[in-house]
Amino acid sequence: MPAMQLHSDRLFPPDPATRAVARELYGTVRDLPIISPHGHVDPRLLAEDIPFPDPTTLLISPDHYVTRLLHSAGVSLADLGVDSPDGLDEGTSRKVWRTFCERWPVYRGTPVQYWFEAELTEIFGVTERPGPDTADAIFDRIAGALATPEFRPRALFRRFGIEVLATTDDPVDDLRHHRALRDDPTFDGRVIPTFRPDRYLEPAGLGWTKAVAALGAAADTDTGHYDGYLEALRRRRQYFVDHGATSADHSHADVRTDPLDEAAAAWIYDRALRGEATVEEATAFRRHMLFMMARMSVEDGLVMTLHPGICRNHHGPTFQRYGADRGADIPTGIELTEALRPLLDRFGTTPEFHLVPFTTDETVFSRQLAPLAGFYPSVFVGAPWWFLDAPEAIGRWRSAVTETAGFTRSSGFIDDTRAYCSIPARHDMSRRLDAGYLAELVVRHRIAEDEAAETLHALVVENPRRVFKL
Amino acid sequence: MPAMQLHSDRLFPPDPATRAVARELYGTVRDLPIISPHGHVDPRLLAEDIPFPDPTTLLISPDHYVTRLLHSAGVSLADLGVDSPDGLDEGTSRKVWRTFCERWPVYRGTPVQYWFEAELTEIFGVTERPGPDTADAIFDRIAGALATPEFRPRALFRRFGIEVLATTDDPVDDLRHHRALRDDPTFDGRVIPTFRPDRYLEPAGLGWTKAVAALGAAADTDTGHYDGYLEALRRRRQYFVDHGATSADHSHADVRTDPLDEAAAAWIYDRALRGEATVEEATAFRRHMLFMMARMSVEDGLVMTLHPGICRNHHGPTFQRYGADRGADIPTGIELTEALRPLLDRFGTTPEFHLVPFTTDETVFSRQLAPLAGFYPSVFVGAPWWFLDAPEAIGRWRSAVTETAGFTRSSGFIDDTRAYCSIPARHDMSRRLDAGYLAELVVRHRIAEDEAAETLHALVVENPRRVFKL
Amino acid sequence: MPAMQLHSDRLFPPDPATRAVARELYGTVRDLPIISPHGHVDPRLLAEDIPFPDPTTLLISPDHYVTRLLHSAGVSLADLGVDSPDGLDEGTSRKVWRTFCERWPVYRGTPVQYWFEAELTEIFGVTERPGPDTADAIFDRIAGALATPEFRPRALFRRFGIEVLATTDDPVDDLRHHRALRDDPTFDGRVIPTFRPDRYLEPAGLGWTKAVAALGAAADTDTGHYDGYLEALRRRRQYFVDHGATSADHSHADVRTDPLDEAAAAWIYDRALRGEATVEEATAFRRHMLFMMARMSVEDGLVMTLHPGICRNHHGPTFQRYGADRGADIPTGIELTEALRPLLDRFGTTPEFHLVPFTTDETVFSRQLAPLAGFYPSVFVGAPWWFLDAPEAIGRWRSAVTETAGFTRSSGFIDDTRAYCSIPARHDMSRRLDAGYLAELVVRHRIAEDEAAETLHALVVENPRRVFKL
Repeated sequence: MPAMQLHSDRLFPPDPATRAVARELYGTVRDLPIISPHGHVDPRLLAEDIPFPDPTTLLISPDHYVTRLLHSAGVSLADLGVDSPDGLDEGTSRKVWRTFCERWPVYRGTPVQYWFEAELTEIFGVTERPGPDTADAIFDRIAGALATPEFRPRALFRRFGIEVLATTDDPVDDLRHHRALRDDPTFDGRVIPTFRPDRYLEPAGLGWTKAVAALGAAADTDTGHYDGYLEALRRRRQYFVDHGATSADHSHADVRTDPLDEAAAAWIYDRALRGEATVEEATAFRRHMLFMMARMSVEDGLVMTLHPGICRNHHGPTFQRYGADRGADIPTGIELTEALRPLLDRFGTTPEFHLVPFTTDETVFSRQLAPLAGFYPSVFVGAPWWFLDAPEAIGRWRSAVTETAGFTRSSGFIDDTRAYCSIPARHDMSRRLDAGYLAELVVRHRIAEDEAAETLHALVVENPRRVFKL
Repeated sequence: MPAMQLHSDRLFPPDPATRAVARELYGTVRDLPIISPHGHVDPRLLAEDIPFPDPTTLLISPDHYVTRLLHSAGVSLADLGVDSPDGLDEGTSRKVWRTFCERWPVYRGTPVQYWFEAELTEIFGVTERPGPDTADAIFDRIAGALATPEFRPRALFRRFGIEVLATTDDPVDDLRHHRALRDDPTFDGRVIPTFRPDRYLEPAGLGWTKAVAALGAAADTDTGHYDGYLEALRRRRQYFVDHGATSADHSHADVRTDPLDEAAAAWIYDRALRGEATVEEATAFRRHMLFMMARMSVEDGLVMTLHPGICRNHHGPTFQRYGADRGADIPTGIELTEALRPLLDRFGTTPEFHLVPFTTDETVFSRQLAPLAGFYPSVFVGAPWWFLDAPEAIGRWRSAVTETAGFTRSSGFIDDTRAYCSIPARHDMSRRLDAGYLAELVVRHRIAEDEAAETLHALVVENPRRVFKL
Repeated sequence: MPAMQLHSDRLFPPDPATRAVARELYGTVRDLPIISPHGHVDPRLLAEDIPFPDPTTLLISPDHYVTRLLHSAGVSLADLGVDSPDGLDEGTSRKVWRTFCERWPVYRGTPVQYWFEAELTEIFGVTERPGPDTADAIFDRIAGALATPEFRPRALFRRFGIEVLATTDDPVDDLRHHRALRDDPTFDGRVIPTFRPDRYLEPAGLGWTKAVAALGAAADTDTGHYDGYLEALRRRRQYFVDHGATSADHSHADVRTDPLDEAAAAWIYDRALRGEATVEEATAFRRHMLFMMARMSVEDGLVMTLHPGICRNHHGPTFQRYGADRGADIPTGIELTEALRPLLDRFGTTPEFHLVPFTTDETVFSRQLAPLAGFYPSVFVGAPWWFLDAPEAIGRWRSAVTETAGFTRSSGFIDDTRAYCSIPARHDMSRRLDAGYLAELVVRHRIAEDEAAETLHALVVENPRRVFKL
């Protein structure tokens, strides 16, 4: 089995002159701190600094990027340990790991291969390529590392050079872990929550009535009527702000933002509480509430991010058996121009209001996302998301948005990951690709090299700080 | 007039280092056999081994890829011999050929130029570029060749190195030519039929009532009621399976697959037979039947391929005068995520069920096609189809699907052609482009060279065999 | 502050072999005259040969490409002088200019940077990069130049090498400036009007009743009934033809072309005049009239161009305060296949009818635009428009349309600009990019170098002359 490749020039353009510029540019940002304004790492991990249980639970089972391609290759999710979030016994963990290594070619050409090669090499010092013959040795090496203090979450946080890490949290969460981290004099990292209220805004969603009751309880407010419901959301947002949050994240089927008049909204709310709202009413209410979330963002300053257009849990049997986030979320087309118009008509030029739309629908990059960000001071182009967080997709995205919106209107890189160990590899990939894109502009004489260097630095640190108010 | 170019490095990336890798990779697959799991060659051609009548009938008149650009340049289809499928007299054939050569620049930058240059050079030994001054000489050379035994269909089949050739056939076809070829001890190629039932599934289509009566006759079943209709389809599918078919092909305006309950389906069927079904009912029935086709594929093992989203016969006057397949089919947008959900919810993880969607709508490549194939073990990414079967379009396709679905989830190349002599050029183009794409990944240090070689071999032979059960 | 770059190899592909071919090809067309078949320069400018008032009014305030990115950066449109079309006092002009220079990095990677660098360097001899330290010097240099006769509009017209310049004009315009230019023995340029009747075709638009009354007055026809309205449009079209127009331009929300029967059209027209037409009726009428415009184009020979799918004046408050064309026009998705079918079914193969659709929706490039132009002799692929008039977008467009439609079916470059001084830079950009695209085809051995040279020449001069009947 050949050794694993991790070339210092990886991802750079092949043309020698362009590559030389890319290499030089990359060198100026390689070691800058990581700013991660949106992701899904569990804050408890850092608060309790619990050792990672085993290689499979760390790197495979909970990561639907990894499990979905094994599933498509015919491996049952049950055989991948996805039901055991807290860890697997050694035998099971090793068995899943072997399955993964045997099927390693399914990741060829995908970013999973890229991230894994970087993680295995740079974090764990693995030099063999995963395969049937090397599975056990790699497993043992990782398992051995995980038993040492150098591989506990906080130690890795420092080693990764993370400056800010935002988590994604339920509005009723008491944020005890964030508080603990903030108050712990032995931890100097910044771990901040993000307000993610989706399920409280969708009366048609499963368990909505119970959810708004819990929201009321958390906010010490009566959510039995619409005004109390709004007040509860306001209070919980403020609670998040008080715990360091700088953004609120929203993911719905679409991003229409048609406001209702308050009486109509209250009327639907009452009907929904009684289980009498029609699907149309529930949808109208959800769209109204997205408008209201913008209004509250104007009030409390939380950056508003949007992640729309995913058909979640596309495969019913998988959802029923294994729950959400198993790789069966499939994108749909989205529309931004008409959908966001009510919101932007009202708040689009309000100072300090920030709106960052992300998308898995590439067609809106040049058609809607960049033109909106190229006019409204409040709108920023969100980084490539999900299926698009990959070298060539990132290239298409930069190409599609830059000529209309420039570099100053883009959000900076977002890793959006629950795979803690992939964070450095993902940010490094982004830096390499931006260096390569800028090098192309330099070699085509569209920008000067000093302009490229200044821009790359901005993309890595200034843009995320400015856009996410960090 | 300059000589025609056919450089050994054609289609490879320009960067010298990348080109060197591409050249090396291509060398390992250049001479592998051709596997063609979907196309439109007439099986009678091979069964009867009839000599091709004349250059124009072989290369121009029946090929709408060729005639449509001449038509757009103002040449009437009547002046291109499209009404004479069985051959033209020498004067007419030569006249059309001259028109083609005079208009040769209309193909510049299109794959037609590429295919023709390869065909003329490699099959017929032509060295002059088509043009007014060379038209007659080229015509004479081809006509001369066609008169020799080396240019009869079976001889070319062997010379082209075709291992499997799938044709596309009507469900009531008796498949006598396939049988004859199978039973002929002097022919050792594999020519298999494909079940294409579109017109039997669309009650709103012209002549549907007559078609289902013919289907009943072919299946020796009473299609006067819904159960008999289903049984007739089942029997004809089995008949195709018995004659070597491994797939069924479906092309409708959309791919919605909402099942009806059986009573509702039977009720619409009866109304449709009486000519009383509404357009809505006919559409609902067609969508139901696409679901039923999947169910039958689960039963009989036929791979299910989908070619949706074409507005056929866009120009009424052309259709009325010349019939279908004249280059006037124009793509529309398609949607896969919601449309295929009922089908995949039911059969998406059924072992041995294979579904291969093709599309002329590039927007679904990264948004829907690759994500579906990256989760469902039954779904494979169909190769670029029709207008997208061209070097740069193939590059966009690989780039759009690979990072999400990897290489193992793609179908392998599909030539989908009725132009027999273009088969080697089309497969060779695909091999060159895949070699180039993989070389880019190697030079960007995303995969190792041995991984690239293994992948290229899989794309050329293992993937089509596996996906199409060959 | 470094000097401004304007490299002779700018925009060419980086690979040395490809670049050498591109350079050679470009050299053969660099100095060819400029043909500009569609744009928004004010003909009065040339008719009266008025000196440009000041640098800001020449280069910034009226150009929404420039102001929109400053606006997105938080600069109020009021602070950019957009309310003063006739010029600014020196203090204000200089202040806006400084703002522009200070914010110069917002344009990095956009075509605005590219155009400005070319304009400043090649037209005004500026060598410093815009910035806070150089703002005043650059301002002074431009202001100084504008005071000299060499920088009056007609002198620049000659210096730019413009052969034809088409303006965009209201149907009731008396075209006095075009007449004056035609009749002026001291001016030998060709400046022609374009018939742009949008607002007369949309009964739902603001002020439609008044507009059709004015149309009647201009045509000396009674537009109080439908027949008179049609006659007025016919007469004004003829008036434009008589003043040199060769095309009519149309921009609506969609391009549906469903004809009404004449009685229905007349009935809606009457209702609309009385202010009683519903939105649905007004839309149906507009779609009918687009069909009628094609019919009139068949009669009078005006090329029909389409610029659909823009949500104009997306931000209400900006529109109310500053009016239209302030950078707040955002694209929507469009559909051509079904929408144009009635029109093309009727006129698609009519000799001498020319239809040129443009789009800001990249998804229709390969899916609809190129397939339509690759079959219908009347349809030509419009050049990249608006947000897509930029180096990488132009590359994506060429790549998406060429393999289906070849080069002969594309319109040639369209600058579509109101920024007079940017015309040479825009056409030069197009020539460089086409040279680069063709060089890629040469180096990949898809076309020969003599074919590339012939094609490039056609794209620069023959195609626009042929498509726009110049």
